[in-house]
Amino acid sequence: MRDRNSADEVKMVLVLRLELGLSPGKAAVQVAHAAVMLAESARDRRGEVYSEWLRAGQKKIVVTARTMEDLQELARQARARKLPSVLVQDAGLTEVAPGTVTVLGIGPGPAREIDPITGSLPLY
Amino acid sequence: MRDRNSADEVKMVLVLRLELGLSPGKAAVQVAHAAVMLAESARDRRGEVYSEWLRAGQKKIVVTARTMEDLQELARQARARKLPSVLVQDAGLTEVAPGTVTVLGIGPGPAREIDPITGSLPLY
Repeated sequence: MRDRNSADEVKMVLVLRLELGLSPGKAAVQVAHAAVMLAESARDRRGEVYSEWLRAGQKKIVVTARTMEDLQELARQARARKLPSVLVQDAGLTEVAPGTVTVLGIGPGPAREIDPITGSLPLY
Repeated sequence: MRDRNSADEVKMVLVLRLELGLSPGKAAVQVAHAAVMLAESARDRRGEVYSEWLRAGQKKIVVTARTMEDLQELARQARARKLPSVLVQDAGLTEVAPGTVTVLGIGPGPAREIDPITGSLPLY
């Protein structure tokens, strides 16, 4: 049974591209890039959702998908639901080539909208 | 020999509290909390540094310190240099007790100011 408060919750989901095999430190940086980009965008364009997200402790979840194709399909689903999303491209100074997409960020948005897209992905 | 561009670089350093033994996913979330808090604060109060940081790719480094005392000493040094800093407290739903300090974030600020504080800490 679905908890109503939980479905109403505003959150951000960061999907790490697992096939890159990033170190935990590198992964954390890429996740943080996505979170800052989504937060800045929400602050500019969706003030109410942004405020609610901050108020409730700026909830973030980090999950994983395997390939670039997986990330693109998830991004497509986010766009279809009119959820904000961002693909983080790494500057490529270490570990991966410049321009490599490392993380897909979705939100902040209501759990009821995001969970159908990312709810079955494994936690990082 | 110190590279001048590197010393002028504006960056953010996130110091993870290693003794907590957080999972990589949990650590990434805490690092992202710190990054968002510092970014929002910089946007409101230090527009020029914020813009420069974004322009140069919002550089972030994740390093580690062992204990809460280590984090507090680093925070003290950041304040002494008038660098922005934040201590992230976890909501405590998983892994650690509510209110546990997980990450110290410093910046965004010039590398020449931050490096003397965090430059010798191991990367996460």
